[in-house]
Amino acid sequence: TVNPDIASERQTASFSVEKLTVWLDGGVENTRTRRAVVEAIESDPEFSRENQYFQSQNERYEAAVRKAVHLQKKMHEMGWTENGPEYKYIYRALAGDVAFLLHHIFIRSISMLGSDKQIAKWIPLASRCQLIGSYAQTELGHGTYLQGLETTAVFDITTQEFILNTPKISAMKWWPGDMGRSATHTVAFAQLYIQGKCYGVHPFIVQIRSLRDHSLCPGITAGDIGPKMNFEHVDNGFLALQSVRVPRENMLSKFCEVQPDGTYVRWGSQKINYFTMTSVRISLLSDEVIVPVMKACTIAIRYSVVRRQSELKPGEQEAKILDYQTQQEKLLPQLAAAYAFYFINDYLQELFDNTYKEIQKKNFDMLPELHAFSSGFKAVVTQHCTSAVEICLRACGGHGYSLLSGLPSLYTKILASCIYEGENTILLLQTARFLIKCFMAASAGQPVPPSVTYLAAVKPRRCPAKNKLDFLSPDIYTEAYQHMAGRLISSTAAKLQDLIQSGVKKHDAWNQCTVQLAQAAKAHCHYIAVKNFAKTVEKLQTQAGIQKIMKHLCDLFALHGIFSNAGAFLHDGYLSGAQMDMVTASYLDLLPIIRKDAVPLVDAFDFTDKSLNSALGSYDGHVYQRLYEWAQKSPTNKQMSPAYEKYLKPLLHNKLSKL
Amino acid sequence: TVNPDIASERQTASFSVEKLTVWLDGGVENTRTRRAVVEAIESDPEFSRENQYFQSQNERYEAAVRKAVHLQKKMHEMGWTENGPEYKYIYRALAGDVAFLLHHIFIRSISMLGSDKQIAKWIPLASRCQLIGSYAQTELGHGTYLQGLETTAVFDITTQEFILNTPKISAMKWWPGDMGRSATHTVAFAQLYIQGKCYGVHPFIVQIRSLRDHSLCPGITAGDIGPKMNFEHVDNGFLALQSVRVPRENMLSKFCEVQPDGTYVRWGSQKINYFTMTSVRISLLSDEVIVPVMKACTIAIRYSVVRRQSELKPGEQEAKILDYQTQQEKLLPQLAAAYAFYFINDYLQELFDNTYKEIQKKNFDMLPELHAFSSGFKAVVTQHCTSAVEICLRACGGHGYSLLSGLPSLYTKILASCIYEGENTILLLQTARFLIKCFMAASAGQPVPPSVTYLAAVKPRRCPAKNKLDFLSPDIYTEAYQHMAGRLISSTAAKLQDLIQSGVKKHDAWNQCTVQLAQAAKAHCHYIAVKNFAKTVEKLQTQAGIQKIMKHLCDLFALHGIFSNAGAFLHDGYLSGAQMDMVTASYLDLLPIIRKDAVPLVDAFDFTDKSLNSALGSYDGHVYQRLYEWAQKSPTNKQMSPAYEKYLKPLLHNKLSKL
Repeated sequence: TVNPDIASERQTASFSVEKLTVWLDGGVENTRTRRAVVEAIESDPEFSRENQYFQSQNERYEAAVRKAVHLQKKMHEMGWTENGPEYKYIYRALAGDVAFLLHHIFIRSISMLGSDKQIAKWIPLASRCQLIGSYAQTELGHGTYLQGLETTAVFDITTQEFILNTPKISAMKWWPGDMGRSATHTVAFAQLYIQGKCYGVHPFIVQIRSLRDHSLCPGITAGDIGPKMNFEHVDNGFLALQSVRVPRENMLSKFCEVQPDGTYVRWGSQKINYFTMTSVRISLLSDEVIVPVMKACTIAIRYSVVRRQSELKPGEQEAKILDYQTQQEKLLPQLAAAYAFYFINDYLQELFDNTYKEIQKKNFDMLPELHAFSSGFKAVVTQHCTSAVEICLRACGGHGYSLLSGLPSLYTKILASCIYEGENTILLLQTARFLIKCFMAASAGQPVPPSVTYLAAVKPRRCPAKNKLDFLSPDIYTEAYQHMAGRLISSTAAKLQDLIQSGVKKHDAWNQCTVQLAQAAKAHCHYIAVKNFAKTVEKLQTQAGIQKIMKHLCDLFALHGIFSNAGAFLHDGYLSGAQMDMVTASYLDLLPIIRKDAVPLVDAFDFTDKSLNSALGSYDGHVYQRLYEWAQKSPTNKQMSPAYEKYLKPLLHNKLSKL
Repeated sequence: TVNPDIASERQTASFSVEKLTVWLDGGVENTRTRRAVVEAIESDPEFSRENQYFQSQNERYEAAVRKAVHLQKKMHEMGWTENGPEYKYIYRALAGDVAFLLHHIFIRSISMLGSDKQIAKWIPLASRCQLIGSYAQTELGHGTYLQGLETTAVFDITTQEFILNTPKISAMKWWPGDMGRSATHTVAFAQLYIQGKCYGVHPFIVQIRSLRDHSLCPGITAGDIGPKMNFEHVDNGFLALQSVRVPRENMLSKFCEVQPDGTYVRWGSQKINYFTMTSVRISLLSDEVIVPVMKACTIAIRYSVVRRQSELKPGEQEAKILDYQTQQEKLLPQLAAAYAFYFINDYLQELFDNTYKEIQKKNFDMLPELHAFSSGFKAVVTQHCTSAVEICLRACGGHGYSLLSGLPSLYTKILASCIYEGENTILLLQTARFLIKCFMAASAGQPVPPSVTYLAAVKPRRCPAKNKLDFLSPDIYTEAYQHMAGRLISSTAAKLQDLIQSGVKKHDAWNQCTVQLAQAAKAHCHYIAVKNFAKTVEKLQTQAGIQKIMKHLCDLFALHGIFSNAGAFLHDGYLSGAQMDMVTASYLDLLPIIRKDAVPLVDAFDFTDKSLNSALGSYDGHVYQRLYEWAQKSPTNKQMSPAYEKYLKPLLHNKLSKL
């Protein structure tokens, strides 16, 4: 039986949930495959996450390794392959608590950066987990700034080996997943030296543990970096290298090579070494950022139609909290953002695929654009979604704060996405650098990529909207975003030039503009996200029911952005105060409209109860019963704490059992 | 030895750190006392927090009880009393991980709401921990909306008892601290029924566990609610009551009473029942919100002068990350806010003391204002400080995400402050209700409290500032905040009236304005915070060195608020776009000025290393060494995981130990 308060929400859906699900999946075949994978995984007790919220770091790690190993078997059993249609749904079905993600990045690095010979040697072993790999880039003292890495790899011409060293404590590799306790090998990034000359950072395959007994190899110091805010299941590790020798063949050499005589040869951009990171940045968005925010919305919105609190109409039953404007204003923009970023993911995937095709033909021309936008969107999407999950958590009040709600672990995990694979501010500034370059080029009449041609036409203008309904026109708001982004980019470019012309050194001038440059980069990404959403809705013409609600969400996403960044649109008078009041009115009007479909809109994400693992977010809405049931399973209720005998009993007034 | 990168920061301080510390403490006597308390507690190994980041929920709880009990002994030993000058420093010195906070709220409730007879009976027992109390207000189905509580207390005239019941699952008490495993008694809030008539929510003392063997009393179901995002050391509990009888004398009866014949008598406002909550709301700000944000700033700022990353000037040594404008813009406004809210705490304490004095004379007139502003500031300060801690965490990159940085636990703990003791949105709307009332009264020429007299004079105006230096004048920016708050309150009041006049029902109209009402309440509090900071700086005339840097911080706090809420100031043209550019310029100019004193400014908070418990934030700046040392102590490094033998060994290629 389903709680009637949530059941009633489903009876009034303005569209078919199943149709929306299928459309989001990209076709009925995909939906069928996804559900089959989820079913196969969730029905297998080896993959259970039932006790996850009660487990220690050691237990989480052990369970994650168990699952990773069992997954190998399962895939074989089910006939799933890395190239099959099922593959992309497995991680979603596992819901994250599985080991050896870095092992897969190890594989991806070798596949992308390794020579054919290296691929032939390492990939089969790695694919069968006959070795466990890791990806050792970050050091204690260096993260996003890769050029600063301090690990060294000196080519010894006499033995045809590289000698790897950790010259000081800050050079110790720190954070790589799967490295603390599992990995036998790693791709370690180090400064390559040949005959005293430094050739920059390169990747080397290094064995760190014995395959026979898992003991550390000679010259290796490694271990686990200890507790983190989440990722208890991952053994993020440290690694120090003391004169560790690897053969010449262990430097990944698809794009460059050290020849036996010490000659260094390169084919193509050195930047290609970072290409694994670009690819990871894009692929993490879906599983690690967008899926979690979709889950958080599902949990918070379902809970908000079951939770009744306070009187809305005097004398009536307490209202569902989703009927309060403030609750709508917390949750519905996050829901709209979840959809917006779901669509942005497709946009980035396409950009990536196109670039990759060219790279395989050794054409690196699209790399700067891909790098700029994968960086910018990684920053914008992770930042936005992290706030969104926090908002969802807080919108569930006290119960959201219980681990049993599922929200705290979604939050503590997604937060890391703002930091790993490139710190967000640094990434935004890389986007900004590209935008400023394009702006200068466009101003000089030079050609620029299509995504930034608008930079050629930045000028003072005013928004033509006359009433609040005008702001429900995608042309009106997309134009507003475009103008705003263009203004921020051009005014920052102007400030930069002014500073340089007034004698400030280039690097100082850049630094003095970085707050505004980061804003400009965000503005560009926000503009593209709005434009892409509107375009996606436009293409939906054949499915009227879905198009209508998607249009509402697109409007909400756009107007919420204007409402909450009002200053950027008011600053030069593009919008007047009166127009901003229209935006606000249209924005607030949308809330009760979307609220009616809020539950169907999250149902369409099609998460199972097991995948949500939330006492608040289950499909049936039996929130309080589930919280109570789950709480009783807590280890804190298993026995009387020793604290009673040790500390409390001697104090308590025990003359009488009752006072 | 101190890391030279942090040592150099201290040599150039523009003021005496010691003098600032003393001033913040309110005099040298206080500083001395505080340091003595901290020294006494930190030198006692029973209070050590050394392994805290490695402990399970059960271990944290046990340690917290041990500390709470040891504290009783320690206080006796040291001659510290609840009325002595040392008392207020104890909690800060313990740094939070101690049990029985709710026991103290139990004591406070009885002291404030109990009759003299009740106080005489219960307080001595409670003070000696001969019983452990809790405070059972929140239920599974009800939090902030106390009128909706479902627990019942029916007066049985024949036995002169109240019969307490949990009529349904949502009525179960849920969340009360110290209740899951420790408490023997609680103050339970329940709907009072006398002869079928409901008299609303009242507090009752209920025994829940035997004093002899700690078993649950008849009719009691209780336990721990399981894992949370933090507060592992607290046994937040659940409690169901099945026909539990307590004597008539157990209803707290300072302000109302049920007489033997069933007559209900009240002296004074019913709202006084919530007075404990008002008092808790104010007192939690200092220890649970402002101290944590000061700690987070200390950790992040110290780390940011030790961490060097990337080239700022080409060819030079990598720069301290605090030299980047973006890093300054993340951290320094949080530092300014920490100071601003430290001063607001004094403001609220004074308001509370004055009100309490009147209440003791049975004059309840100031209660609405106290309630409105304690609510509003609780919401604004907790929200602002929670974001601030998150910003500090993220500003430390990956290492901030390690529990060993201390930042994750500061964050997960402070986040709860947005929820407990009144959900923030609800609280803001209570503030808004008061402001709207005052605005209506002021518009009608009626008297209003001094803090809101500005509402009588809201009208269109323009800011007189002519250049960026004008924005360093407290009059200019305080005026801007005042105008902005007044405009938001008056325009929301107008919208409310328009809706009602157009036929929308009052409660619907209110709901449709709540997003804007919450904004208006925040704006008022922000204005008061700026004004109070400026006033505090003004009073500092005798200490020129400190006054100068405090003035900078006050300017930064104010301008950061305008910069990041630009829309609110631009909307009606109070500030022009050109003036906003001046604000931005002045704001950004302040960053490098304050950056010079950033380390001394956090040093002045005078936290010991033990109290920070952070591998990143220690006084000596030896960040990397400490991270490495601490990581090695992690239980994940104590032994090879059973996962190797069980899962990995069978898979790995073991023909050769080395590939």
